[in-house]
Amino acid sequence: MEYALGIDLGGTNVKTLAVTARGRVLAEASVPTGGTNHPRWKNAVRNAAKQIQDQLRSAPAWMGVAAPGLPSPNQRCIAHMPGRLPGLEELDWQKAFAFPRVIPVLNDAQAALLGEVWLGAARRAQNAILFTLGTGVGGAALVDGRLLRGHLGRAGHLGHISLNPAGKRDIVNTPGSLEDAIGNSSLSARSGGRYCDTEKLLAATLRDDPEARRIWSDSIRALAAAIASLINVLDPQTVVIGGGIAKAGPRLFVPLRRQLARFEWRPAGAKARIVPAQLGDRAGAFGAAWNAMNFRD
Amino acid sequence: MEYALGIDLGGTNVKTLAVTARGRVLAEASVPTGGTNHPRWKNAVRNAAKQIQDQLRSAPAWMGVAAPGLPSPNQRCIAHMPGRLPGLEELDWQKAFAFPRVIPVLNDAQAALLGEVWLGAARRAQNAILFTLGTGVGGAALVDGRLLRGHLGRAGHLGHISLNPAGKRDIVNTPGSLEDAIGNSSLSARSGGRYCDTEKLLAATLRDDPEARRIWSDSIRALAAAIASLINVLDPQTVVIGGGIAKAGPRLFVPLRRQLARFEWRPAGAKARIVPAQLGDRAGAFGAAWNAMNFRD
Repeated sequence: MEYALGIDLGGTNVKTLAVTARGRVLAEASVPTGGTNHPRWKNAVRNAAKQIQDQLRSAPAWMGVAAPGLPSPNQRCIAHMPGRLPGLEELDWQKAFAFPRVIPVLNDAQAALLGEVWLGAARRAQNAILFTLGTGVGGAALVDGRLLRGHLGRAGHLGHISLNPAGKRDIVNTPGSLEDAIGNSSLSARSGGRYCDTEKLLAATLRDDPEARRIWSDSIRALAAAIASLINVLDPQTVVIGGGIAKAGPRLFVPLRRQLARFEWRPAGAKARIVPAQLGDRAGAFGAAWNAMNFRD
Repeated sequence: MEYALGIDLGGTNVKTLAVTARGRVLAEASVPTGGTNHPRWKNAVRNAAKQIQDQLRSAPAWMGVAAPGLPSPNQRCIAHMPGRLPGLEELDWQKAFAFPRVIPVLNDAQAALLGEVWLGAARRAQNAILFTLGTGVGGAALVDGRLLRGHLGRAGHLGHISLNPAGKRDIVNTPGSLEDAIGNSSLSARSGGRYCDTEKLLAATLRDDPEARRIWSDSIRALAAAIASLINVLDPQTVVIGGGIAKAGPRLFVPLRRQLARFEWRPAGAKARIVPAQLGDRAGAFGAAWNAMNFRD
């Protein structure tokens, strides 16, 4: 049976999925990368791909990749990924695998969005945005059914919008960014060193710790303001929220929807759907596979 | 000679341009509306259109409209414009003029952007954004050569992004919006009642008034943070800035470019072009005309 191999290169694991054009999963494999600073991540990719082929006894008809960093405008490689995954920048995946078709490359948030639009929380949407809330805040946008890429391929970096022009600049120089207002990497700074991950912060809010509650509520208000802003800019029908912090479930979504009732522009009562991601850690591999099957030069 | 009639319905005047497919202006007319609350704006539109036809002794081959408010998804009318220009909402322009072709409708900032892309400051750009800085802050975005409209047609409202989640909510509920950080309508509030338009504020900065300088510099920083944010979201190659406040020229663009050198993400040194609008008060009519000639159902 013809299948696409979706490869999702993450910081900890390489996830591969063999998936048909109708979205049926034929096989899957996950192999540890050995960490993002280790050059052996390439072996992990080969091993994960090989496990699938051995299991299915056939080569994929299409291959697609999701990886961190900035894809090149021709979508053949990651053009820009300073400091992590040595050898990823400029790697031409089609050549590396000696594959007959182009192996198109997405960044991880773009792939997750395409996965969720294909088979998950944003099915049938023509205009949708996705946030991944984790260490940082990733993002991607679908506009009129097409992935928003922009001039250099960096469009959709929704975590890097300013919510405070006087604030500290983040890793791409955005002052007071959404990423720094809700991402795990800034939590220690935001809490005077008391918390270093959102799970512990949420546990403290359940113990009625007023400081923890204030920090969490500020984060949610920042996220709501960012979503309201992006609704005015991109006008999505669906807003998908994934990543580790989204596992908070109702403790995230209930106060977030309450804030959006204050901040969202709702002409004639219309409002955007705010929904949790559905595909979990398979979203990126699904999106990479879909992108490979639908790639046009 | 075949021409498109571009109609730009503004608060004070209706501006009409007769323009060929190559962008040559054959005739133009401007008629006062009598104010946005007066129902006789429709007569002003008819008069402005008639002046052109009388002058050219021929009917237009295409007609297009730019108006304030939210265009309907089918682009036949302004669906939403509460409180101003009575009778504009839901007005079907094709029926009103008994015109053989669809008369497509844009909002004023969308039309200005299409005009600038066609004949002005963003020529040949495939990805561009435009701000109009005036009483409020209008905006529009071009993505892969197409106007960004979104699900409900409200995409591109770039003035309504939050720069302070704890701030006062603006006319569409965005807390601490860009519009309220730089638009003339909020200047009195931002200056403790000392200034009511940006021209007077700028005159005071030239007299070395430290309070005026602080207000102006805060506005510029807010605009720079907003532009940096939208570069990360939409990745334009060109950012066009028009509207009354842009007449400040170097007093706007010099400090704005300085702030962007701090805030803009510049992968491999690439930076967006920040340019003043070139078409002045003709941009909207040019854009409406272009949109009519290029309209596809």
